Amino acid sequence: MSLKSFISVPKDSHFPIQNIPFGVFSTAEKSPRVGVAIGDQILDLYEVSSAGLLDNVKGLKDPKAVFGQSTLNTFMSLGRPVWRSTRSAIQELLSEKNQLKDNSQLLGRVLVPQSKSRMHLPAKIGDYTDFYSSREHATNVGIMFRGKDNALQPNWLHLPVGYHGRSSSIVVSGTDIHRPAGQRLLSKDKPVPSFAPSARLDIELEVGWFVGTGNEPGQRIDIKNAKEHIFGMVLVNDWSARDIQAWEYVPLGPFLGKNFGTTISPWIVTLDALEEFVVQGPTQSPEPLAYLKETVPSAYDVKLEVHIKPAESTKFQTVSESNMKYMYWSITQQLAHHTVGGCNMQPGDMCATGTLSGPEPGSYGSLLEITWSGANKIPFDNGVERLFLQDGDEVNLVGYCDSASGYRIGFGNCQGKILPCPYSA
Amino acid sequence: MSLKSFISVPKDSHFPIQNIPFGVFSTAEKSPRVGVAIGDQILDLYEVSSAGLLDNVKGLKDPKAVFGQSTLNTFMSLGRPVWRSTRSAIQELLSEKNQLKDNSQLLGRVLVPQSKSRMHLPAKIGDYTDFYSSREHATNVGIMFRGKDNALQPNWLHLPVGYHGRSSSIVVSGTDIHRPAGQRLLSKDKPVPSFAPSARLDIELEVGWFVGTGNEPGQRIDIKNAKEHIFGMVLVNDWSARDIQAWEYVPLGPFLGKNFGTTISPWIVTLDALEEFVVQGPTQSPEPLAYLKETVPSAYDVKLEVHIKPAESTKFQTVSESNMKYMYWSITQQLAHHTVGGCNMQPGDMCATGTLSGPEPGSYGSLLEITWSGANKIPFDNGVERLFLQDGDEVNLVGYCDSASGYRIGFGNCQGKILPCPYSA
Ligand SMILES: [Ca+2]
Ligand SMILES: [Ca+2]
Ligand SMILES: [Mg+2]
Ligand SMILES: [Mg+2]
Ligand code: NI
Repeated sequence: MSLKSFISVPKDSHFPIQNIPFGVFSTAEKSPRVGVAIGDQILDLYEVSSAGLLDNVKGLKDPKAVFGQSTLNTFMSLGRPVWRSTRSAIQELLSEKNQLKDNSQLLGRVLVPQSKSRMHLPAKIGDYTDFYSSREHATNVGIMFRGKDNALQPNWLHLPVGYHGRSSSIVVSGTDIHRPAGQRLLSKDKPVPSFAPSARLDIELEVGWFVGTGNEPGQRIDIKNAKEHIFGMVLVNDWSARDIQAWEYVPLGPFLGKNFGTTISPWIVTLDALEEFVVQGPTQSPEPLAYLKETVPSAYDVKLEVHIKPAESTKFQTVSESNMKYMYWSITQQLAHHTVGGCNMQPGDMCATGTLSGPEPGSYGSLLEITWSGANKIPFDNGVERLFLQDGDEVNLVGYCDSASGYRIGFGNCQGKILPCPYSA
Repeated sequence: MSLKSFISVPKDSHFPIQNIPFGVFSTAEKSPRVGVAIGDQILDLYEVSSAGLLDNVKGLKDPKAVFGQSTLNTFMSLGRPVWRSTRSAIQELLSEKNQLKDNSQLLGRVLVPQSKSRMHLPAKIGDYTDFYSSREHATNVGIMFRGKDNALQPNWLHLPVGYHGRSSSIVVSGTDIHRPAGQRLLSKDKPVPSFAPSARLDIELEVGWFVGTGNEPGQRIDIKNAKEHIFGMVLVNDWSARDIQAWEYVPLGPFLGKNFGTTISPWIVTLDALEEFVVQGPTQSPEPLAYLKETVPSAYDVKLEVHIKPAESTKFQTVSESNMKYMYWSITQQLAHHTVGGCNMQPGDMCATGTLSGPEPGSYGSLLEITWSGANKIPFDNGVERLFLQDGDEVNLVGYCDSASGYRIGFGNCQGKILPCPYSA
């Protein structure tokens, strides 16, 4: 569709009219409410609704009440047809043919520069699940911990492994993360832990997807309907303290090594905006069980990059370039698996894919892999080097899809800076 | 204190005036609001506040607004001094010396029979963490899975192992639980899973504790202040599908084997009501690290029982009698550990202790242990037997403390019935 907005959108902007991701923003004058990103602006959907511009969107009964809220949970619960009709109406409003462009008085009320806004978590996240769906990542970790032969656990190729994460410490891009302290083993042979700030603080490059409409307890979401239940995607940095995680995780999984912080990008990119970039995923063998059998291609060709600015440096450097299309278990298989036993999902729940590494070095989604468990230093400008993160280091995850029609659908920033541990021990 | 209420409280009632547990209830006429249990009645704190009877409780600014809510989260956030002054004021109101007893018109408004009420989840649970703090349970499971020598994992005696659970499927006592279906291995030697309703559906006898006031991201809750942050306790049945759990849990922990349902008792018993039953916990060796060093005794002598009514039977039978006092890691050590890396706890968060087994057979908190992984059948009346739960079976967990002063502080019921899996496969 050769949509074009009256708002100027630079060619490499993440937010052309073909994107229209949803988020929650506030300004000095405006309390948190729902908006969409367009170019370097935010379209305030509360003001747009107040002006009656979303009155006849099918299924959207009370737009002002829905978009005046400080989370997207209510809008998410309305279902994909309403997300779709709302997004089309917004594209209409922003299109160069719409007379809104001449109504400078109204424009002054409905448009806010992103530079003048503060972004908030887009939803109240009731539950957060982190999957482990990249074969490359799981294999790399397996090789490092268990050697080449049994790199993948026996269950890995049969089910999308996942665990429940901590919701309370999910923060929006731009929030600083305190280095955690905790128990860790000093040497492999003496199983007595000591306590100190983590010395192996890592990142995990992931994509998060939000449940829009859920399922009742005891009921399943069938894989062929899964896309109807998924509102959209964000970038996720699942910060990980490897030393704390290694000592604690047997047998019940990661806990303090993960729950000190998880960063997400603020703009939820809808599945409709990403439809153009759907590709066939990796072939799966052995064949998955019936409830996991894909009926439509469900992998997404999303370019992913890890950028790091060490404390001593003045600029970010790209340390890794990966792509979501390599992911073995799709987001629809993840949702089908999550509910096959009757676990009830709710609007606003977030699931993350697990670290998304690519097949070659240079495409790994964690410092654990990039440095191969701390063996190879990563070089930065003027002699700066890193194995794991130091205090003052900043990380930004970037994700985007380049359309053949010349625009870019992007996720904005997913950024965080490491603050020193507030405790000496 | 020789408190006595004008409301008749049978001797073995769980809810004497010395208890006053908080919960959320509704009736045909009343929308969900906060109440406390007394004898077989509920004192409606919204009506009590409307009548101005809680007006001069220190720190409780707007009782009507606080107790008119459908969750206890706001009341929990007010802090222990306010919980304490409110509970004392309520005991005052209910005491035989109070003229409320002669005001039958007001009594008609503030008292509701429990039999005419429906109980709700007492709080919006933002995050749920399940610990593994019973040495007896962890040892039994270790022996069954890894043999006597390395029954306990190397980390067990150094830190309270825990994992993030699923909040959405926590339900209040009396809610039916659907048998989950999922992947499981048919035989140990052929690592190819098949899909079916779980054939090893189990219970876990646990105590849950609610965070009242939390901590900021990056900050810790010091163990010597931990009791100030804990609102109170409930009983928890962490239903577990052992076959699904066994195939999925390596390396990231239990997931679908647990998240199909978790049942809690509706009345939160305050730490003040349990203070009388505090005892010294088990000696801990090796000595815990500094942040885990108890400053005051923090174990609780709470009698715990598992009652099961097989589908074919007409009455419940006691299958196990345990006690919370055996628990190795205390609730204060659990909270100190949970926050030592800066994970932020919030009002309404729930943590569970992990299955609470005792030292002898007959005191185990799971069918896995009672039947020793399905080897020994449990006999019920007229020839009925069980290894794991069948469809139609009902489970009730019971907990109480018998005071030397002749009353009983109890937790009420924590009950659930197993419904057939809604899917044939
Ligand atoms: Ca992760
Ligand atoms: Ca448990
Ligand atoms: Mg995290
Ligand atoms: Mg459970
Ligand atoms: Ni049903």
